[in-house]
Amino acid sequence: MKKKIILFLCLNNYAEWEASYLASAINELSNKFEVKVVSITKEPIKTIGGFTTLPDYDIINIIDNYEALFLIGGYSWVLKEAKKVVPLIEKTIKENKLLGAICAASEFLAANGYLNKIKHTSNGLVSCEGWENTLYNNSANYIDAPAVIDQNIITANGTAALEFARLSLLELKVNTKEKIEEWYEFNKLGLCGFVSKYNL
Amino acid sequence: MKKKIILFLCLNNYAEWEASYLASAINELSNKFEVKVVSITKEPIKTIGGFTTLPDYDIINIIDNYEALFLIGGYSWVLKEAKKVVPLIEKTIKENKLLGAICAASEFLAANGYLNKIKHTSNGLVSCEGWENTLYNNSANYIDAPAVIDQNIITANGTAALEFARLSLLELKVNTKEKIEEWYEFNKLGLCGFVSKYNL
Repeated sequence: MKKKIILFLCLNNYAEWEASYLASAINELSNKFEVKVVSITKEPIKTIGGFTTLPDYDIINIIDNYEALFLIGGYSWVLKEAKKVVPLIEKTIKENKLLGAICAASEFLAANGYLNKIKHTSNGLVSCEGWENTLYNNSANYIDAPAVIDQNIITANGTAALEFARLSLLELKVNTKEKIEEWYEFNKLGLCGFVSKYNL
Repeated sequence: MKKKIILFLCLNNYAEWEASYLASAINELSNKFEVKVVSITKEPIKTIGGFTTLPDYDIINIIDNYEALFLIGGYSWVLKEAKKVVPLIEKTIKENKLLGAICAASEFLAANGYLNKIKHTSNGLVSCEGWENTLYNNSANYIDAPAVIDQNIITANGTAALEFARLSLLELKVNTKEKIEEWYEFNKLGLCGFVSKYNL
């Protein structure tokens, strides 16, 4: 069976912890998907922690047939160069594919007007409103929660890697709801907390 | 000022979430360190989530002057090939440098006899005792805690990436104790929990 492609869009100096739970859980809970990393070019990029990542695709030569696009936060979303990803974001929204954005990537969606018609969250309301020339005008639908899903768009703050993963895994149906919730609780409570709660 | 090198040893199919908080926090809380990734060879390796990482060093041509060595968990610690990292581990212990091991890497230390004289933790006691031909004989000093430090060796289970990072950051003195504890609490509670706790 051909695997469904999940795209992770990472720019240079990306926040690796924000991608790490979702990407690994996709492969731990299912064998139906293939994770691919997209960046502006195929040149190596760095994580904030200094690891070097080799992207699978550049932003121009993306495969057409992907299941979801996840935008991972980091230091480069405020740079002019980040605008190059707009066509891929618009294609994803237009084709009604799942779009996820965490931390600075959710701020980018807000500042570029993509969160103006849906419920959403980000790194605090001020982070949506504070961008220069922001197109954001939807504070009424800003929700103080770790992660929010509305109309195929998942947003999360930068400390909510596990909650971002949980909503995304559920929406992608990578496994049964029970297995996904168990994965989430095990990681949220940690091994010691989980063993203690269930007297294992 | 020359930066101090911190080595992250990652094998193929490594558990990216276990490295992500520690590596990023080293760079977010300090500019005194440089994170470098070591693997068996310099060929690209994969994360469990399918990201491709380019190692900075192979296991033979390691720089001599490093500050600490962190062994990151994953699927390859049980493979015969993993034994190739033993000289680097022994050098680190012999030179009294900080050694950290999380998840399967802590099991590897246990099975190879490196945790027999210190307090430690891992993925449950059975994970230390269960390896074929294990040299582990120190169940009396197994501690049911997310992360443990004793005599320059930090061990943690695979759900304790934040606690592994906290102990390591404190031991490396990447910043003041207060800044490190604040970093830990912010990430542990999450933005919403943190804001709520401190009425921000």
